[in-house]
Amino acid sequence: MEITLFSPLDMHLHLREGDMLKAITLPSINDFASAVVMPNLRDPVDTLEKVQTYRKQIESLVSEHAFEPLMTVFFRSFSRQELIALKSHIFAVKLYPAGVTTQSEKGISDFSAIEPTLEILQELKIPLLVHGETNGFVLDREKEFLPMVERMAQNFKDLRIVMEHISTRDSLRVLERYENIFATVTVQHLLFTLDDLAGGLLQPHLFCKPIVKRPADRQALLDAVLAGHPKIMFGSDSAPHPLDKKEAPGCAAGCFTAPIALPVLAELFERHEAMSRLQDFISGHAQTIHGLEPLPKPVRLKKEPYKVPQTFGSVVPLLAGHTLSWRVSSRGD
Amino acid sequence: MEITLFSPLDMHLHLREGDMLKAITLPSINDFASAVVMPNLRDPVDTLEKVQTYRKQIESLVSEHAFEPLMTVFFRSFSRQELIALKSHIFAVKLYPAGVTTQSEKGISDFSAIEPTLEILQELKIPLLVHGETNGFVLDREKEFLPMVERMAQNFKDLRIVMEHISTRDSLRVLERYENIFATVTVQHLLFTLDDLAGGLLQPHLFCKPIVKRPADRQALLDAVLAGHPKIMFGSDSAPHPLDKKEAPGCAAGCFTAPIALPVLAELFERHEAMSRLQDFISGHAQTIHGLEPLPKPVRLKKEPYKVPQTFGSVVPLLAGHTLSWRVSSRGD
Repeated sequence: MEITLFSPLDMHLHLREGDMLKAITLPSINDFASAVVMPNLRDPVDTLEKVQTYRKQIESLVSEHAFEPLMTVFFRSFSRQELIALKSHIFAVKLYPAGVTTQSEKGISDFSAIEPTLEILQELKIPLLVHGETNGFVLDREKEFLPMVERMAQNFKDLRIVMEHISTRDSLRVLERYENIFATVTVQHLLFTLDDLAGGLLQPHLFCKPIVKRPADRQALLDAVLAGHPKIMFGSDSAPHPLDKKEAPGCAAGCFTAPIALPVLAELFERHEAMSRLQDFISGHAQTIHGLEPLPKPVRLKKEPYKVPQTFGSVVPLLAGHTLSWRVSSRGD
Repeated sequence: MEITLFSPLDMHLHLREGDMLKAITLPSINDFASAVVMPNLRDPVDTLEKVQTYRKQIESLVSEHAFEPLMTVFFRSFSRQELIALKSHIFAVKLYPAGVTTQSEKGISDFSAIEPTLEILQELKIPLLVHGETNGFVLDREKEFLPMVERMAQNFKDLRIVMEHISTRDSLRVLERYENIFATVTVQHLLFTLDDLAGGLLQPHLFCKPIVKRPADRQALLDAVLAGHPKIMFGSDSAPHPLDKKEAPGCAAGCFTAPIALPVLAELFERHEAMSRLQDFISGHAQTIHGLEPLPKPVRLKKEPYKVPQTFGSVVPLLAGHTLSWRVSSRGD
């Protein structure tokens, strides 16, 4: 059995920089037509110059593949002039509260100061992507941040807001309430709960932010995604860290899922008899929501056993060593 | 500054077996007059012969130290005759639900079948120590198990029941409700929450069962312990695993706290101006509850910096590398 996905889009991707960028980008540029590239490098991508430099680094790896990086900038107070200059070079602005995830130290701590920039984003029709977590108790952070998202949605009704990597039922409720709020969902939040991370033995490769939640949260996300919820897009949040930063005390947050995303999703949608809705989750909804016209790129998957490699370079992928029932035809691993 | 603790008791201790037993037992036999030794070896300690063999292995390490292991047997259906034979050789029977922690596979899954044994324990005045967790969602397990503890307490009013390593406010409420229920508390549940384990980077050496909980749970335990709650005893649940079982995918549950327990408790009680209540937490309450007459053993602590070693043999202790403000005078590390 085979399926073809047309122009798969990864609406939330960490490609990192330097050697890591070179080591881990191939699965993404092979399997996807386009990906929204996160700006949280060691030195955050928050100027036009940095966007252009980073885009060139990524494009130098693309070679014969059809793949378009959709660049983002790290939220700060931008002037109207800066955002006008940036607009044609970026897909969106990404807002991190300070300290909530990898390399977010320069994120926002004073939310009263962000409104002038939101005003300009709204005017220029630049989407706002939000890592919606507070610094509260780890399981409550997403829920605690929701009033902030709601306030933005109310005050800037024409601002397109994407709640990234949602992990709770609470976020789904807010998604219903506001026309201008959308969401991305990862593979790991569809597959796992805190029981998988820490209920038996502790599994560092399942550790990410937002942390995986309760079974009822996972089920609610899965139900919404499999039902074809039109405001929910796939965003892997694939976030590689080298093995020695994962299998050690002080394990970094992030699941490396780029190489397994399509096979896992095919398996999941097939198991739940929802295969007909995979195309929209992986591309259609994002095209409609954002008015994207991605590169035409058919990606074929075969129903054949795919043993997930133990490592890609220095990085252990999610489900390393497991055998999935679908593989991407054009990949040799 | 110096303090002397008289006959400290560790009411819940894992000494393991073989090379591990030899490698990690010294801090316990140096710092404590006695410890309740858990029976969850690879082959559970559940017969008189196994108790005697295990006790001999432990006693062979005691040499000149004054230290008495209080042996336990792994709960199963025991006959009256078996328990009569065991009574003078054991301190208590330890009940594990199946699958809830390290080497608990042979634990109880059919709770309707345990009552005849509880009846005999009650008659023979043998305490029942309970690892009170279900196989539910990791944060709810202790709370979900409480009705089972309550049922035991109601049906066997003269059975002395100890809820081991309690980690929630809910358990404190049950403790208040039944005269025959008591509890032990560990160092890690007084110090840490899930935020310390997984709120920033993931910390495998803070991973234990029951998992550390919410800030309000930790605070409630701390308040009860520092206030001198007479039904709460110290039980370290010190549970060593070799480094390669902790700093790896599939990290085993357990914090190795035996070497740091007394310094950490001295620091904690001093900081909260409760030093006068440490003696009862560390020994007095257990003596009263269980009618114990421990070996007379003064253990002196000095207020001097103690840098916790990175490893004891192959085991990384909790707070490795941290500098504590108290040290056990008789230990050279």
